[in-house]
Amino acid sequence: MTTAARPTKLTEAEIEQRAGDLKAWSVEAGKLHRAYRFPNFDEAFGFMSAVALEAKALDHHPEWSNVYDRVVIDLTTHDAGGLTKLDFILAARCEQLAADFGARS
Amino acid sequence: MTTAARPTKLTEAEIEQRAGDLKAWSVEAGKLHRAYRFPNFDEAFGFMSAVALEAKALDHHPEWSNVYDRVVIDLTTHDAGGLTKLDFILAARCEQLAADFGARS
Repeated sequence: MTTAARPTKLTEAEIEQRAGDLKAWSVEAGKLHRAYRFPNFDEAFGFMSAVALEAKALDHHPEWSNVYDRVVIDLTTHDAGGLTKLDFILAARCEQLAADFGARS
Repeated sequence: MTTAARPTKLTEAEIEQRAGDLKAWSVEAGKLHRAYRFPNFDEAFGFMSAVALEAKALDHHPEWSNVYDRVVIDLTTHDAGGLTKLDFILAARCEQLAADFGARS
């Protein structure tokens, strides 16, 4: 029986390089941060449901909040004590799914 | 054509009376507040999905956040500038649904 290797914390240089691919995200308090606005609640929660399935598949979960048409997401890897490639993978999937659900910003 | 009447803001006395039925909720910054903990992310997000359907049916939406097995909910009626019976209806449904999804607290 093998244990899946968990990703390790990225260096500052690695974070800067990867963050360049996610222009709308910022690093705030050591977490990848993004606020989305959708046409209404249905799309906002539809987006969250789609991201929840990704989170389950990755075994990597967002910190997030929702108020009507707005969703705010923070990503970090608690096990690693910082950002790992999992955060960037989930952020990239969020970008794709947000577009599918008509994100306005 | 009729327009559905929106509920009006409750008085302090009305809030106190209704809050008595929702022991685990508090009133914080003028909003009905409750933090739940579930067995894991699946149940936490399952609960949120069920609440989202109620919110749609009521046309009344929560302010909420989720971190893994935890869900924090704040309820208020922005249109009325305070708490209305809609907040207490949604809070009561949250209690029922949280039990269905195995809330630990």
